[in-house]
Amino acid sequence: MKALVYNGPGKKAVEERPMPRVALSTDAVVKISKTTICGTDLHILKGDVPSCVPGRVLGHEGVGIITELGQGVTGFRIGDHVLISCISSCGKCDYCRRGMYSHCTTGGWILGNSIDGTQAEYVRIPHADTSLYKIQAGANEEALVMLSDILPTGFECGVLNGKVQPGSTVAIVGSGPIGLAALLTAQFYSPAEIVMIDLDDNRLAMARQFGATTTINSRDGNAAATVMKLTGGRGVDTVIEAVGIPATFELCGEIVAPGGTIANVGVHGTKVSLHLERLWDRNVTITTRLVDTVSTPMLLRTTQSGKIDPALLVTHRFKLAGILEAYDTFSAAADTKALKVIIEA
Amino acid sequence: MKALVYNGPGKKAVEERPMPRVALSTDAVVKISKTTICGTDLHILKGDVPSCVPGRVLGHEGVGIITELGQGVTGFRIGDHVLISCISSCGKCDYCRRGMYSHCTTGGWILGNSIDGTQAEYVRIPHADTSLYKIQAGANEEALVMLSDILPTGFECGVLNGKVQPGSTVAIVGSGPIGLAALLTAQFYSPAEIVMIDLDDNRLAMARQFGATTTINSRDGNAAATVMKLTGGRGVDTVIEAVGIPATFELCGEIVAPGGTIANVGVHGTKVSLHLERLWDRNVTITTRLVDTVSTPMLLRTTQSGKIDPALLVTHRFKLAGILEAYDTFSAAADTKALKVIIEA
Amino acid sequence: MKALVYNGPGKKAVEERPMPRVALSTDAVVKISKTTICGTDLHILKGDVPSCVPGRVLGHEGVGIITELGQGVTGFRIGDHVLISCISSCGKCDYCRRGMYSHCTTGGWILGNSIDGTQAEYVRIPHADTSLYKIQAGANEEALVMLSDILPTGFECGVLNGKVQPGSTVAIVGSGPIGLAALLTAQFYSPAEIVMIDLDDNRLAMARQFGATTTINSRDGNAAATVMKLTGGRGVDTVIEAVGIPATFELCGEIVAPGGTIANVGVHGTKVSLHLERLWDRNVTITTRLVDTVSTPMLLRTTQSGKIDPALLVTHRFKLAGILEAYDTFSAAADTKALKVIIEA
Amino acid sequence: MKALVYNGPGKKAVEERPMPRVALSTDAVVKISKTTICGTDLHILKGDVPSCVPGRVLGHEGVGIITELGQGVTGFRIGDHVLISCISSCGKCDYCRRGMYSHCTTGGWILGNSIDGTQAEYVRIPHADTSLYKIQAGANEEALVMLSDILPTGFECGVLNGKVQPGSTVAIVGSGPIGLAALLTAQFYSPAEIVMIDLDDNRLAMARQFGATTTINSRDGNAAATVMKLTGGRGVDTVIEAVGIPATFELCGEIVAPGGTIANVGVHGTKVSLHLERLWDRNVTITTRLVDTVSTPMLLRTTQSGKIDPALLVTHRFKLAGILEAYDTFSAAADTKALKVIIEA
Repeated sequence: MKALVYNGPGKKAVEERPMPRVALSTDAVVKISKTTICGTDLHILKGDVPSCVPGRVLGHEGVGIITELGQGVTGFRIGDHVLISCISSCGKCDYCRRGMYSHCTTGGWILGNSIDGTQAEYVRIPHADTSLYKIQAGANEEALVMLSDILPTGFECGVLNGKVQPGSTVAIVGSGPIGLAALLTAQFYSPAEIVMIDLDDNRLAMARQFGATTTINSRDGNAAATVMKLTGGRGVDTVIEAVGIPATFELCGEIVAPGGTIANVGVHGTKVSLHLERLWDRNVTITTRLVDTVSTPMLLRTTQSGKIDPALLVTHRFKLAGILEAYDTFSAAADTKALKVIIEA
Repeated sequence: MKALVYNGPGKKAVEERPMPRVALSTDAVVKISKTTICGTDLHILKGDVPSCVPGRVLGHEGVGIITELGQGVTGFRIGDHVLISCISSCGKCDYCRRGMYSHCTTGGWILGNSIDGTQAEYVRIPHADTSLYKIQAGANEEALVMLSDILPTGFECGVLNGKVQPGSTVAIVGSGPIGLAALLTAQFYSPAEIVMIDLDDNRLAMARQFGATTTINSRDGNAAATVMKLTGGRGVDTVIEAVGIPATFELCGEIVAPGGTIANVGVHGTKVSLHLERLWDRNVTITTRLVDTVSTPMLLRTTQSGKIDPALLVTHRFKLAGILEAYDTFSAAADTKALKVIIEA
Repeated sequence: MKALVYNGPGKKAVEERPMPRVALSTDAVVKISKTTICGTDLHILKGDVPSCVPGRVLGHEGVGIITELGQGVTGFRIGDHVLISCISSCGKCDYCRRGMYSHCTTGGWILGNSIDGTQAEYVRIPHADTSLYKIQAGANEEALVMLSDILPTGFECGVLNGKVQPGSTVAIVGSGPIGLAALLTAQFYSPAEIVMIDLDDNRLAMARQFGATTTINSRDGNAAATVMKLTGGRGVDTVIEAVGIPATFELCGEIVAPGGTIANVGVHGTKVSLHLERLWDRNVTITTRLVDTVSTPMLLRTTQSGKIDPALLVTHRFKLAGILEAYDTFSAAADTKALKVIIEA
Repeated sequence: MKALVYNGPGKKAVEERPMPRVALSTDAVVKISKTTICGTDLHILKGDVPSCVPGRVLGHEGVGIITELGQGVTGFRIGDHVLISCISSCGKCDYCRRGMYSHCTTGGWILGNSIDGTQAEYVRIPHADTSLYKIQAGANEEALVMLSDILPTGFECGVLNGKVQPGSTVAIVGSGPIGLAALLTAQFYSPAEIVMIDLDDNRLAMARQFGATTTINSRDGNAAATVMKLTGGRGVDTVIEAVGIPATFELCGEIVAPGGTIANVGVHGTKVSLHLERLWDRNVTITTRLVDTVSTPMLLRTTQSGKIDPALLVTHRFKLAGILEAYDTFSAAADTKALKVIIEA
């Protein structure tokens, strides 16, 4: 089968690979219908993710059809149409029993990282019973690919951790796919204001379409002052960090209200400064989280009932054979205006 | 009357001052029986607290007797024996209505800071109805002075924010009065292990008496490694920072378990490094808090019923006339082994 | 001034009464612009509320202008346009400090009950600082009258207590003003389904306009079976009881899912049967609550920003002189299709 | 092997049965070391549990050694010393993923109910990975048998659902094994007062030894009045119902404070009266729960570290051959003063 293979920093290729097979009784093999590329895949290609070694098939998102099943899988049948979670969860370990699937001792984020992933014609899924979700007939596959990772990530790491509430104020720093996923799902809780902050006017225009009540281009360095003015000097109740660099994290600390929460979603490569000399007495909460995908069943229900439309995040479409072009398009988002690219396998 | 007056950085004196009087209808005047000195008073004397100007009577802790009452005070009578909260709370503003008295728009930490405080024969207490607490006849005044500030601070900022739970593991960094207050009150929730970390063997010996299950002297730089070994490489569920410098805050990040909480209690003077490159995917929570004293009624009940004995924290006793010596003793804690010093007015 | 006076069971009259004056320093006097009638007023008129004695001016809802202020009131000025909370709260007692204003030891539901109320030209409001809310210039007074009682009641007693969540299923038993208020505010949390159950097709049609996804007329006795069929035999996550009779409460127990919540809002006059022989192992929660009006600031923000429109509940309008006719209209809701009636003073 | 078999209402016998074998790949077979009898077993023998048919081996509690394992079990080895949970949990279904193992779609309370149980030499345990817990070498088996059911039941259904808090007041109605288990585990949260109510002075004496601060014999019908007097007319914050009859449930409603919680633990055979005419405005919460055993790992840690000693509940000991006598002793608790009886297999 064809697969997108990571061959060391800066190197990737579409290669012919053997078909994956069930290895453990709890595995399934899924024929991929649609997959996508994540910002994390770009991190791997920069050589920033040591757990991902050369030779690995990338990708941790996708929908498809089950073609092979281990004997221990009880919840699925061959032919079932399924959503693949980016997080594999055994359902048995202490972390899984506490709902913290991200830290499953034999799972977590392993697809396209420590085992072969979804940017291929077929993929082996460990712990299938607790890592796949059935899709209703006729569902929009493109919308559902967004539920493998970015919707639960924006929702759990940003909205839930950030404790968004009816009538509250929210700022989201970073209007990329994850920031927009947080924006879409923050509206489940009817906050009064959602301020979106980014450097790219195109992405801010998207944010307004997605429900942001105010947008701020932070290029001029006045974003914090603007937010404080908007909120009468109080700051916002929830700040969601969806970029992952020191400057954006520090901005969060400048605009959080007393009693507020900073929910970090961004993947950080270096340490950041935390201004405790100013924040120690402000009663703030700062959270970090690798998505657990505990909210996937709820997100499936709300997507299928039309409450949210994650397909809005899809800007470009490619065939698996053209995945290198898909990577180019996704990497050059400032020019191509790409958010999420769909790859049909 | 006599009072301890801050006269600018490094300068303090016992001076004769006019008696405070009721200024607003919600005020009370309290004749101080016993007060104490807080680490924050030392910060003021270093010139680190700009809101506290020269000429200010210091002190925000104490018990005493009401001698004068504004007409709007409905919950107290002259002659009532009362505990003074370090936080003044109006009960009316948005923050007070949310239980965040620390940020009361006309109160918060003002005693011995922006208005005259308790290291004096008398003190004016604003918002008396919601900033004083009745003391039962025969109560131990020394124990109750601990409830003005350090018990609720250790409990709210450390134990409650840190989500200590039955069977969980806790580490407290800093075995001074606040750290020990957190240690005493953490035991309300029956954690399985409480590890105390400090540089001073005397204070660690106190911690063992107060209920610590393990103590670690961090002088050799191996504290983090020791904690990780103790916990099978997992880290602890709750880390309470009770020092307030960058090194101790960074230690907290090294020993917190996935899914755990770092509850900052320390007063910080500079920014700290937060290693998000390691913590972004660890599902941790970091909290800051100026004490709200919402737990004071509960702490009064548990002290009065003997569940905890905060008087254990008292190591030295002075008269108001000898308060300069009390300051010397408290400032030289490493030599004097002082924890809390009681000053009888 | 003119006022609607309760003169014992079944008797009421518009009478001339002396103007109320400030009695305590924390009081305000408000000139009523608009008020309304509540189902509870009808209970009083039946003689079911012993705390309300003959001679009492009824009414606990309204908006108006402050005309007199006690010296201890700090948050308002004469001429301020205000919303009156149905719950008076001192802000000082143990219950108020815990956010349970409904049980304030010198307040709670006293207006139009143990002290004179709002169905008059003027009303005295105790604890004004913590029982009145400022109204923005140009606000829709009719919408805001709904925030004195029924919106916070539906939201706090029904939606908050019922733990409505994104993607969850909700049933509301009773499509009167309170049930509709619960329906409006349940949507703050984006549940997947809201089933409305009532005997009156007109009210069910209103419910569909207000956002119910399914309506069931329970006249045929099959409501429980219909809900179970709709939910695949599982039941609903949240059931809100908004009627107050044994039959409707029992229905709630038949349709609640394992792990679900029954939030009682109805005012009950007799005991009900609780089928613990069936529910003891179902992991359900049943709550009761007299509204605390802690959510009033949030409801004001969401109403003023247009997220909800409580004015939809207003069906009829009268002058104070015609309040007896307003009572007739409101009492005969099945015929008049009345929900809330506005009375202009 | 020998087993205690239910042969229809009022009939039981020790019979010779075939050894259980692994039937599904997720099963284990456990050789029982120690088991016990539960009040629920007596309910079955009365014919009150239709899901339990004649021919069933009773018992859902025990510790033992694994003698056979299905191929899909990954967390255990033959020879492991294990605690058996009374609740079987697949770890995969929606309920298990939400931590509500009691309602596992292929598990829940099935042992000694819909499948053969633990009052035998061997037992087959379905879903072994998520229904067994490893026991440390040298652990007290008698203490651990208490963790199969009554400790987690008292803790989860009583203490956790009842929201016991530091400094709060608690009443437990029923001083049998479950009530005493709630009493032991309530102390994890350091409540100020725990009032135990029962008809049997012997059991009340046990309660005082176990930590009750007050005991009330309710024989004279004055229990409610006594509790109200003790609490200054306020009532208690948490009431735990550990009997299961209408009279004791009604007592709970008479003594719960405004804002308090009634946590039902008792197994009820008939409906009860809920006095909503008095409770509708009291802001109370009533909960029911079949134990989920989510707290078993925590209870194991706290038992093994000596924080609690569940072996205190054991009053009598028998061999499996003498289990009929054990039943007689346990059934006649008022005379024999039995709490829990240990049966050695």
